[in-house]
Amino acid sequence: MKYWFQDKYSINTILNIKIKETLFKGRSNYQRIEILDSYDFGRILVLDGIVNVTEKDEFIYHEMMVHVPLFTHSNPKKALVIGGGDGGIVRELSKHPQLNQIDLVEIDPMVVDKCKEFLPSVSVGFKESHLNVYFEDGAQFVKNKENFYDVIIIDSSDPVGTGKKLFQRNFYKNCFRALKEEGILTAQSETPTFEEELRIMKSMYTKLHRIFPIVKLFTAYVPSYTCGIWCFIICSRKCDPLKNFQVKRYKKVRLKNRYYNADIHRASFALPNFLKAEFNNF
Amino acid sequence: MKYWFQDKYSINTILNIKIKETLFKGRSNYQRIEILDSYDFGRILVLDGIVNVTEKDEFIYHEMMVHVPLFTHSNPKKALVIGGGDGGIVRELSKHPQLNQIDLVEIDPMVVDKCKEFLPSVSVGFKESHLNVYFEDGAQFVKNKENFYDVIIIDSSDPVGTGKKLFQRNFYKNCFRALKEEGILTAQSETPTFEEELRIMKSMYTKLHRIFPIVKLFTAYVPSYTCGIWCFIICSRKCDPLKNFQVKRYKKVRLKNRYYNADIHRASFALPNFLKAEFNNF
Repeated sequence: MKYWFQDKYSINTILNIKIKETLFKGRSNYQRIEILDSYDFGRILVLDGIVNVTEKDEFIYHEMMVHVPLFTHSNPKKALVIGGGDGGIVRELSKHPQLNQIDLVEIDPMVVDKCKEFLPSVSVGFKESHLNVYFEDGAQFVKNKENFYDVIIIDSSDPVGTGKKLFQRNFYKNCFRALKEEGILTAQSETPTFEEELRIMKSMYTKLHRIFPIVKLFTAYVPSYTCGIWCFIICSRKCDPLKNFQVKRYKKVRLKNRYYNADIHRASFALPNFLKAEFNNF
Repeated sequence: MKYWFQDKYSINTILNIKIKETLFKGRSNYQRIEILDSYDFGRILVLDGIVNVTEKDEFIYHEMMVHVPLFTHSNPKKALVIGGGDGGIVRELSKHPQLNQIDLVEIDPMVVDKCKEFLPSVSVGFKESHLNVYFEDGAQFVKNKENFYDVIIIDSSDPVGTGKKLFQRNFYKNCFRALKEEGILTAQSETPTFEEELRIMKSMYTKLHRIFPIVKLFTAYVPSYTCGIWCFIICSRKCDPLKNFQVKRYKKVRLKNRYYNADIHRASFALPNFLKAEFNNF
């Protein structure tokens, strides 16, 4: 049945997306899950009423979350993905042949099941041979690791309900401990367009800045996310994403990507003045 | 009276913006004009049902349209604005002290009147002392100019109705002739997110590429425009916006800007692979 899905950017701004058909609607132990088929964005994974992944533009988010940190690290071997049950992050990680272990910790098996069923171009990531999938609480999982990972990618939902733990200071501290000396952490960090999300972004940045010596924001255009501009945070003890950009390895790997490239890597760190101004106390 | 304004991105994607009040609604000789007061975007100028300018984010569009070409030209003295009846382009031009003549050609006096009345932070541009305002057809105006301007900025609406002429090959040719040897032209060029706008962008690019030796796309985030990513075209005979970026003058002018800065100037030319692929036949 055709209808309009409402993606609420704020109480006063709503993106209405015309839906052809609801492919799945259910409730897991953790959240409401819907898979919708839309005219403009292809199939859409909706978690607790919020657009999570669309076939049209998921590549932008997933490429930026993965290749920016992977091409900042000089020799990444072990990666941890927290969340990421759709498979998109792993799909991009699998383009890096030097990785020999990828651990994915997703709390909700139903997300993985339904993405495997309805979003094959995203969940193709689960075919990666070096992958171990754990259906656990990511915040618990990371507590037991020390000096182990080269890269940690936090592919969280918004900080409500299930996702809340993945925005807390203790969790970030545990991630820091789980990383090796040259380790890198990346997390999605919402949008600066609306006040509520900007507040979340600033809170994340403040917490991470107390733990990691290097913390930088980068941006990408994600049309289906709140008004297009999306921010990410990259943190490390030692590696600067511009100074340490591994451009030679980037050229060697020859990614077949649709968004990320060497110019985009560098350009994504150029912040508009209004965004710099929000973070100039650090 | 409160209501929801519908900004149609496509027939299947609509941004709904909650309106506090309609400040003005009328019809000029050229178009329907509305000024709305919204909760999230401040006051909005709507022309023929399409969001044209919002108080929240007009600075992004206007700064990028002006400072990218102005800091590409080595010594701009004379500028022509075609369209731009809200005053935002002129406001940004007035930050360049070396300009000694700014001509603005707007077909619709009612746009200027209503922006002066309801959008003072934008229409403040009309106070610029070097400004001449002509209420004429921009396409006609430019026919009579030869080897005269250093910079031409086409601040057009979408290519429907009144705005259509400003997307035609003959008009671009006349702009080329109106420019001096080192002259630069900039135009807004829609978004690549939806097919119809991408088609317009490609058509503009094709036409301009047959006339100007140097033609480049650049991008900015404009939240109130279609799904956030907005494109611009810069063209010239001789000046490359990266190689000829006048970074020394930029530092001297000390703009008080909210979006544009030297990093953003360079970064705005980094195009995602999917966008490059659309233009790789040129």
